[in-house]
Amino acid sequence: MQPFFSQRFEKVEPSFIREILKVTTRPDIISFAGGLPNPNLFPVKAIEQACQQVLSEQGAATLQYATTEGYAPLRQYIAERYQTRWGMQVNPDHILITSGSQQALDLLGKVLIDEGQDLIIEEPGYLGAIQAFSVYQPKFRPITLGEEGLDLAALDALLESGTTARLLYGVPNFQNPSGVSYSRANRAALAERLIRHNLLMVEDDPYGELRFEGESIDPVAKLAPENTVLLGSFSKTVVPGFRLGWMVVPAWLHKKVTIAKQATDLHSNAFSQQVLHRFLTTHSLDAHLEKIKEVYGRQRAAMEVALARHCPPSVRWTRPEGGMFLWLTLPESVCAMELFQVAIEEKVAFVPGAPFYVRPDIKNTLRLSFSCVDEATIEEGVQRLARALRKML
Amino acid sequence: MQPFFSQRFEKVEPSFIREILKVTTRPDIISFAGGLPNPNLFPVKAIEQACQQVLSEQGAATLQYATTEGYAPLRQYIAERYQTRWGMQVNPDHILITSGSQQALDLLGKVLIDEGQDLIIEEPGYLGAIQAFSVYQPKFRPITLGEEGLDLAALDALLESGTTARLLYGVPNFQNPSGVSYSRANRAALAERLIRHNLLMVEDDPYGELRFEGESIDPVAKLAPENTVLLGSFSKTVVPGFRLGWMVVPAWLHKKVTIAKQATDLHSNAFSQQVLHRFLTTHSLDAHLEKIKEVYGRQRAAMEVALARHCPPSVRWTRPEGGMFLWLTLPESVCAMELFQVAIEEKVAFVPGAPFYVRPDIKNTLRLSFSCVDEATIEEGVQRLARALRKML
Repeated sequence: MQPFFSQRFEKVEPSFIREILKVTTRPDIISFAGGLPNPNLFPVKAIEQACQQVLSEQGAATLQYATTEGYAPLRQYIAERYQTRWGMQVNPDHILITSGSQQALDLLGKVLIDEGQDLIIEEPGYLGAIQAFSVYQPKFRPITLGEEGLDLAALDALLESGTTARLLYGVPNFQNPSGVSYSRANRAALAERLIRHNLLMVEDDPYGELRFEGESIDPVAKLAPENTVLLGSFSKTVVPGFRLGWMVVPAWLHKKVTIAKQATDLHSNAFSQQVLHRFLTTHSLDAHLEKIKEVYGRQRAAMEVALARHCPPSVRWTRPEGGMFLWLTLPESVCAMELFQVAIEEKVAFVPGAPFYVRPDIKNTLRLSFSCVDEATIEEGVQRLARALRKML
Repeated sequence: MQPFFSQRFEKVEPSFIREILKVTTRPDIISFAGGLPNPNLFPVKAIEQACQQVLSEQGAATLQYATTEGYAPLRQYIAERYQTRWGMQVNPDHILITSGSQQALDLLGKVLIDEGQDLIIEEPGYLGAIQAFSVYQPKFRPITLGEEGLDLAALDALLESGTTARLLYGVPNFQNPSGVSYSRANRAALAERLIRHNLLMVEDDPYGELRFEGESIDPVAKLAPENTVLLGSFSKTVVPGFRLGWMVVPAWLHKKVTIAKQATDLHSNAFSQQVLHRFLTTHSLDAHLEKIKEVYGRQRAAMEVALARHCPPSVRWTRPEGGMFLWLTLPESVCAMELFQVAIEEKVAFVPGAPFYVRPDIKNTLRLSFSCVDEATIEEGVQRLARALRKML
């Protein structure tokens, strides 16, 4: 038959990263490209026990249809952790369990974004958010993300220019792709602007629990709870394969996102919610996180040492205090997409920065992931990368 | 802050059924309202074994991020079952695993529906589809569903009236809510119209494997594969809590729905896909289905007997050969919404038909589910229903 598509999907093409990642799975390639948590740190045995316990104790009820909002004890656990970890009062009834944070982005797009409306996003910004929101056809208004956080002068200029933006998306902790965190002062200033300008921030926080260095900083949501939707995820702290995340939603938004969730998939996998809750309540999440942070911290340090040792001085990089990513800025003459081709010949892979920008003019950046590569491999991989880079200079 | 919503969500309100179902969980009420499969028939022990096997054999890999398309061996299994069950050639690469059929509806809405565009749907129609598609703001064009299937004369009239419809949604086997199936002739005539008018049918088939009577009829997708997206689900045949369904997509549509899936939730729960596949390949699905069909068939028969015994002759009902639902048509003077209130006083519940219509003028129908109620309870519940009904006449 004659193909047809909705106007919103007429021009959509497969993500470039998706295509790239196919090359990077070749066994001879050292890959800094993936955004995967380290599977060696997954609590496989504990999950196996939790499956067995949940099924033998609860039986068929664990496998039935369940509520759209999510498993109540899991929501209670999340609320209590906000209390103990951040001193935040979160009502479990305002938590919605989602199929990963990615689904939260889709639901928020559905409920909040009109075609052509301005949407403020970090530059560089998280690709998954750009993809999810793009479906609802906003006009992206990028604001530079610097070492301290969002460029407030640029944000102020935008907010005073008569923007139609009601929504701002950001990842204040160890951002994907840059690894940068917003400082305490930057968050306070941002919260003040959210309130003053009646803006809603989607505060995406998949990495906040993975701080291996420096001091924890309160979420923006603690400063401006009515003006934020706070997203969390178990993908980086426990396992990603369950596709379980959550959103903390202000009261005024809760009913509509729940309806959107119901129309989208009724509810998230009920069995996995119960298994995850069992794992969290029979093991120490903090002890588990310590193991992850020890490994990631060590690997980030190794990557920094290797970059300093092998890269020409014209290359700069961020120094993340947590998370999984580090961001390289190359000399302006070097196009990271072209470098990628040379790097593949040298048998090392990364993600070029281009897809993280909503405007196409910045070409000399790239993302390196240190989560899944041990220290010796990092040293070898960075050597290869530096060799590729030297060919381009 | 000042609440705001996208134009598409400005007027959306919680589903009426959702509110109703809260009342019906009272322990003193006999409920024919729910749309749940019978949990006594869930293969709990086998699922527990499959979890254990998958985790101990495959380890961490089962819990990592996975491909958007879904677990390849599960897609292979589904393709092979279409071959053995229906003699259909389905390419596993054209199968996309979804988070329940509900998600397939959302993805198709995203990729195919423009605001204001006609969308053809059965009357009465599946509420979940109405909800999922409504987000994308089509103009619903209902076509009456009769004992033999779609009203072809009405469909022809619509197709020749200059409709903008490119999409038709239907449930040809044991439809929710009516229990009606399309006859072989009706399917053939429909397939011919799909091809002639360049229409795409979303053929939703969650109940096709639950035929306890009569002869199986080929899916419309077998007759017009390029003009159908065929949806399937494990929710009614294995367990719903995993939220696993699938769509068989024509080649021209596959790339775009995969992109939509990626933007929506990256992929469906990877662990549950593997557990489900393990269950399906270490047990006989057919033997398992026999048990379900035996119970549902017996309960449908009991419901018919009780209806014939207790209801006034002015009440008519469908005679489903499979699935979970039966549809009552009351005398025109009786409003099923009002009957619902009286029935709750009599301690019996059902779903009034109103939410299954996209136009508000039909009030004298209701849905009864026989999946979760044993024969003695059915007899008692139908007595109560008839008592409530007599109060209204």
